[in-house]
Amino acid sequence: MLGRMSLAVTGTIGIDTVYTPRERREGVLGGSAAYFAAGASFLSPVRLVAVVGDDWPSTHRDALGRFTGICTQGLETRTGSRTFSWGGRYFEDVNQRETLFTEVGVLQEAPPRVPDAYRDTQFVFLGNTHPAVQADFIDQFPQRKLVVCDTMDLWIKTAHGELLSLLKRVDGVVLNDTEAHELTGIRNAVSAARHITTLGPTFAVVKKGEHGAVLVHRDGVAVLPAFPAPEDRVIDPTGAGDSFAGGMMGHLARLGRTDFKAIRDALSWGTVVASFTIESFGPERLQALTHAELNERHEHFRSALGVGS
Amino acid sequence: MLGRMSLAVTGTIGIDTVYTPRERREGVLGGSAAYFAAGASFLSPVRLVAVVGDDWPSTHRDALGRFTGICTQGLETRTGSRTFSWGGRYFEDVNQRETLFTEVGVLQEAPPRVPDAYRDTQFVFLGNTHPAVQADFIDQFPQRKLVVCDTMDLWIKTAHGELLSLLKRVDGVVLNDTEAHELTGIRNAVSAARHITTLGPTFAVVKKGEHGAVLVHRDGVAVLPAFPAPEDRVIDPTGAGDSFAGGMMGHLARLGRTDFKAIRDALSWGTVVASFTIESFGPERLQALTHAELNERHEHFRSALGVGS
Repeated sequence: MLGRMSLAVTGTIGIDTVYTPRERREGVLGGSAAYFAAGASFLSPVRLVAVVGDDWPSTHRDALGRFTGICTQGLETRTGSRTFSWGGRYFEDVNQRETLFTEVGVLQEAPPRVPDAYRDTQFVFLGNTHPAVQADFIDQFPQRKLVVCDTMDLWIKTAHGELLSLLKRVDGVVLNDTEAHELTGIRNAVSAARHITTLGPTFAVVKKGEHGAVLVHRDGVAVLPAFPAPEDRVIDPTGAGDSFAGGMMGHLARLGRTDFKAIRDALSWGTVVASFTIESFGPERLQALTHAELNERHEHFRSALGVGS
Repeated sequence: MLGRMSLAVTGTIGIDTVYTPRERREGVLGGSAAYFAAGASFLSPVRLVAVVGDDWPSTHRDALGRFTGICTQGLETRTGSRTFSWGGRYFEDVNQRETLFTEVGVLQEAPPRVPDAYRDTQFVFLGNTHPAVQADFIDQFPQRKLVVCDTMDLWIKTAHGELLSLLKRVDGVVLNDTEAHELTGIRNAVSAARHITTLGPTFAVVKKGEHGAVLVHRDGVAVLPAFPAPEDRVIDPTGAGDSFAGGMMGHLARLGRTDFKAIRDALSWGTVVASFTIESFGPERLQALTHAELNERHEHFRSALGVGS
């Protein structure tokens, strides 16, 4: 069954430099596809579609390879190209960060192709890249059952028409509160998500970082806080949103469901996966995570919500 | 049973002037005790301890009187004094507001006395006022079972020692995220609440406005988002926090319980009560609220959390 309920992610693999108020780290494995896949892999096998340069460290390849649920057949290493790299700084308010540099490298070249072996994938997550590239990926998954995309401020501003075309072709959107505001002009997360569902998608998830997430679906509304992490557990928020999406899509893929209640329940898995991601730089904490820990914290989270049975 | 599980609130009754981005209202019934009592009254009878001047409008008295659960025997009208009044302006980001004016009036005089008929009260909420006055109220409830207080930035700065003394005598604290930060120096809501529990109280609830609330109790941690309100439902956030505390304490009083699980579950009642408060200026929406509407939205909220049975 799991083999049939397959999940794929298209997105970036990056080499990150991260400054937090307390520490600086260089050469960290990053990128939306890396965090998504790492998070999803605890819930469903996940197929990675991404491209790196020949400068990509073997330590990063080994780190991804140790996630038993990740298939890297669609990870292309392009000779003579440089891997995408990103640097960012977080403030004391961990919901605030600034980008220090972005070296797109191989991302400005032709996108990777989806391997033939991935063509039967049913659950597809299109990580943030140019919306025309995201649209091209859709066609490479002819057996798709649920397609969800992310986007960012750059494409909202510079590729608005293509983004609107993309939205007409996806089932769902996952984006953060700032992006939802920029896309719709609406600050209220519920109203912004509702507006996005009028642009094509059946549902929109607005991520609010430490304040949780809101889902607006044609069949209902859902809302969840973030896992209540004390400050000494918040080491590096990078990748929280991508691994949230990974946990969410991983739960849907393992159920093989696309309905409102399944998506609503999937938010809690995304939330709990993200709560581990922020406990280390890069995906280090996820590398050490066990299924028992994940399930235990999910139960803990249900209990903390105080509305369980 | 309900009569014995009694609830009392001490706090302010005010005449508010409120500016929102879309509208301005003067002469609105306000104050922490008014909003607390209005919210609590749907869950438990509530005894009001407050003082107004002889300028207090009869329309406000009538409005409070129409809440069948509110006992106003402890509401003193002081001849020759002026009622507390407050003016504030909200920004497009409804979590942000500025105070335009505060005319303390009767609040700078002797505080009201707790009527003898209230002395058997078991659940006591000390709305925001000088911490020495709050401490004096405690002694007037000899049969108290659970005492919870609020505070504000003014007392954190100007009456810090008295506030720390008060904290040693209360069971719980309910305050907003800015106040928790100012009191503890800690921005993270979970860590700030945890710190407060080292100062005396068994639990602390940090209210985050549209982002929900966090409870840290010696026996556990709980977290809830706000009710997912679209922007056209958010008319005036004034009183949301006070009616949240009212709903929370009202639920505890009707159960007659003071344990962690009861407080955790009580947060959801506070959340739902507050979601009605913000739908109008003043307590107008609460005046029109029915028990059926309250219970229906509470069920809706449980469902929106996606972790129910």
